[in-house]
Amino acid sequence: MMQYIHRLGTTPRFSEAVIANGFVFLSGMVPENIDADIRAQTANVLAQIDDWLAQVQSDKSLIIEATIFLANMDNYEQMNEVWDSWVIPNHAPARACVEAKLANSEWKVEIKISALQKA
Amino acid sequence: MMQYIHRLGTTPRFSEAVIANGFVFLSGMVPENIDADIRAQTANVLAQIDDWLAQVQSDKSLIIEATIFLANMDNYEQMNEVWDSWVIPNHAPARACVEAKLANSEWKVEIKISALQKA
Amino acid sequence: MMQYIHRLGTTPRFSEAVIANGFVFLSGMVPENIDADIRAQTANVLAQIDDWLAQVQSDKSLIIEATIFLANMDNYEQMNEVWDSWVIPNHAPARACVEAKLANSEWKVEIKISALQKA
Repeated sequence: MMQYIHRLGTTPRFSEAVIANGFVFLSGMVPENIDADIRAQTANVLAQIDDWLAQVQSDKSLIIEATIFLANMDNYEQMNEVWDSWVIPNHAPARACVEAKLANSEWKVEIKISALQKA
Repeated sequence: MMQYIHRLGTTPRFSEAVIANGFVFLSGMVPENIDADIRAQTANVLAQIDDWLAQVQSDKSLIIEATIFLANMDNYEQMNEVWDSWVIPNHAPARACVEAKLANSEWKVEIKISALQKA
Repeated sequence: MMQYIHRLGTTPRFSEAVIANGFVFLSGMVPENIDADIRAQTANVLAQIDDWLAQVQSDKSLIIEATIFLANMDNYEQMNEVWDSWVIPNHAPARACVEAKLANSEWKVEIKISALQKA
């Protein structure tokens, strides 16, 4: 079986994106706009996902699964508004969303996704 | 490399099941019986997993990994009683179980699994 | 498509390691040294990961993704010190790290990883 790993955005701690056998795994993406509200933070995270997917020959139509960590479940509906409008119709991934304290208290959301590369 | 994604139970927010290159990814399954105790909620979630796996040419003997989110870790042993009796002997998946607040306060458990399709 | 699952360290509840189509999935590894501090618990967990990877024809250079559950986010920097020195330069996986209550109150960290097998 072919084995192939390629890493992008690699630091001593993590890689932003890892390609393995045609699958793409992104690190949990966190907001760059730490002073923003949940809608803007979610939009920022999803834009980063778009950017990293573009760099690994993938896009949001090819997302397989997503795990969403919300720092406060009270933000569930507002996060979902932004998420739902971002997802391509008929291409929604498998998803789980739970509340969890994140590494930075100013992050309101962290999203980790897996995808396929384009054929 | 062949790239193939098929989705079932797709809403604007998530798909209940996603097939990608022979792997199956289910969304975090949550209880339909919200007034039930942890044993009944776990049984309900596992029955949904059985149902979705049957729809994607898989079954519980082919589950690879599971992440279990418990709303209250005090329910750990009772959840495990139902889980252990459901798992096929010698076919247990890789598993993690942590406590996390879920999107609906009446859900006591959410389980997200990955599996293979039948050959 | 070839379908292949092999399990190691299998109990009625979980398998320590599952191999599926060239991918390796480990259960959430938890500390054996429950009285130790976060640094020693993290080192113990990472040593277990090394051991299981060796048993499935893989190693830490082939880790694709990691999810780290910390019982207390106050231990983030100390856990990272141990993690960063363990990761092979230029081989860091995609990673997410969140706080979550674990099944045993003496566990300070649980780490779940996926990897590839060697070619």
